[in-house]
Parts: sequence; C-alpha cells; structure tokens
Amino acid sequence: MAERTTRRQELADAAISTLARAGMRGLTHRAVDEAAGVPTGTCSYYFRTRQALLQAAVERLAEADIADLADRPVMAEPADIAQVATVAADLVERWVTAGRERMLARYELSLESTRRPELHAVLVAAGKAHRAVAQDLLTAAGASDPPSQAPIFVAFLDGLVFDHLAGAGALRLTTEELRRHLLDLLYGFIRPFHS
Amino acid sequence: MAERTTRRQELADAAISTLARAGMRGLTHRAVDEAAGVPTGTCSYYFRTRQALLQAAVERLAEADIADLADRPVMAEPADIAQVATVAADLVERWVTAGRERMLARYELSLESTRRPELHAVLVAAGKAHRAVAQDLLTAAGASDPPSQAPIFVAFLDGLVFDHLAGAGALRLTTEELRRHLLDLLYGFIRPFHS
Repeated sequence: MAERTTRRQELADAAISTLARAGMRGLTHRAVDEAAGVPTGTCSYYFRTRQALLQAAVERLAEADIADLADRPVMAEPADIAQVATVAADLVERWVTAGRERMLARYELSLESTRRPELHAVLVAAGKAHRAVAQDLLTAAGASDPPSQAPIFVAFLDGLVFDHLAGAGALRLTTEELRRHLLDLLYGFIRPFHS
Repeated sequence: MAERTTRRQELADAAISTLARAGMRGLTHRAVDEAAGVPTGTCSYYFRTRQALLQAAVERLAEADIADLADRPVMAEPADIAQVATVAADLVERWVTAGRERMLARYELSLESTRRPELHAVLVAAGKAHRAVAQDLLTAAGASDPPSQAPIFVAFLDGLVFDHLAGAGALRLTTEELRRHLLDLLYGFIRPFHS
C-alpha cells in the first residue's frame, strides 16, 4: 500500500513536470511514463483516464502547497507590516524559483478547469490553503478586513507570479523591489481609503 | 489586399475563440477552419505553421487591446483616486465579461510562450499598451512612482482577472467590491509605506 502511494505520487510529479515543460498539449500518459522513467503503460494503469491524471496532479500540487506554506517562518503576534511583507516576498520568490514547475502546471490546470467542472472543484478546494495563509498574514499585519481581502491578496500575488513566469510584463524584480511593492499593497489593506 | 487582411483577421479571431474554448490542445488549423466556417485548408493557406498562427492570434489580441483601451473614458487632469479606481474596475469588468475569450486565449498564449521565445517577444511588445495605460492611470491618481508601479499594477489586475475566469479563488466580486479593493490598492501606490 505504501509502495503504491509512492508510485502514484511519482507519476503525479512527472505529470506536473510534463505540464510545465510541454503544456496541456504535451501531457499524455506516455509522456508521463517517460518523464517518470517507468515502463510504458504504467501511468495508464494507475490513472485510467485523462481526468484521473489531471486530478492527481491537482491533488499533488495541494500536498506540496501545504508542506510549503507550513514551512514559512513563524511571526511574532502582532507582527509588523514589514515582517509580513518580507514573508510574502519570500513566498513569491520561492514560487518563481524552486516552485516554477508547480506554478506553471497550476496555471495549465486552472485554464483546463474552465473546460472541466470536476477539475475546477478540486482546484477550488486545494486553493483554500493559500487563502487561509493569506488571511493569517493579513490579520498579523493588521489589515482592515482579512476575510474579504485574503482572496484579493492571493489573486494579486498570483498575478505577480504569472507575470514573472509567463507574462508580457516580463517583471524581473529584485527581492528588495518586491518587498517594497508588497509593503505598499499591505499598506492599502491596512488603511483602506474608503473607510 | 483589403480582402486578404480581413480573412486573416477572421482566422485570427477564430483561433482566439478556439483557444478559449478548447485550449492549446484543441487548437489545430482544422479547428480554426471549422470555427471560422471556411473550407478546410484555408487556415493552413494563410498561416503555414503553428507558430505563424499563434503569432497572428497574439497580434490580433494586441489590436483589440489598443481599441479597447482607447475606448476608456477620458479623465479630468488631475483625476481623483476614486475616478481612477472606477476606470480600472470598469476595465476589469469588461475583461471578465465581453473580453473573456480574449483573456483566456491570452493566458494560453502566455503559457505557450514559455516554450516559444519568438512568441514571448511578440507578447511582451503587445503588453506595452497595457503598461502605458496603467502608467497614465497611476499618474492621474497621483501615484508615487508610476513607471515602476505600472507593471505591478497590470500584474495585479491580471491576477484578479485570471482568478475570476479560471482561478481557485473563485472570486466573484460585485462592481462595488471590486472598485473598493482597487481604491485600497491605489491608495497604497499613492502613499507608499516605505517613503
């Protein structure tokens, strides 16, 4: 049973790298076998349908997210805004470097989910970890309305990452620039203009 | 010559809807012929390679953007921040409704551009229109550093649109909520915390 779990995870990881490298168009059961270095037919055996394979990739991304987010530095309570900006900047940095493959695969799967409602439901559930962490960060920073601001904050960070990895803005920020822009953003969340 | 231009644009439009509907995997010359309602082989005649077809789609998106952005309301100079937030919220609203297909196609093409440097260069050039408008809006709002904030602003708005159309956050904001969050964001740009 343990061995079977490991093989499934290995194949899901290979699906994630295949998606990042070759896109949804390059993702086939056979390409995953090759990427995982397993005999042809292995991926089809574990994941009979394309839907099952895509779903396994989304679930694997969610596992990795949880590990990743749990790994962030503990902040003093209440944290100051500068500390929160640093934590957020570090997360963004990690997503565009070590997390590059996972983020690209996530975007591929997100676009595919517009055509597959079952996949969309899995993605939305998996995204809860991000929104919960965002809400904690905003609360620590003293934001005015963390529950409604958290999904916006996640969407903004995601936009930064997308642009950095694939976008037309060709954003190439230094860590310090990133931290400074996130500080401005958090400031807007703390002192809302409309209040 | 005029007729040829029209047919090329028609095919590029059909490529954009095909990308939005069926993704990069569903985009074939034949699928574009079908979407455009033209005889099989037409798309291959105008765009011999896949690269030529993808490039035509990016260029067509850029044309549409320029028309779209030129169409935005003229603001008083200097505009107040609330007016700028309303203009930005209206743009986002338009991108997730009437512009849905174009935005989804743009995300597909952006991801594909990570594998095609020639396509990436075309996308970056096309993205200049967005960044120029963002810089105008930020200048009108009295932002502290429009040239360096404009690409960040575009990335944030793009993140909102991506999340709304395809993301895990399942953002469904009312126009008023959207406007309010953009007001907070602009406020951060105007009164940077670090200054």
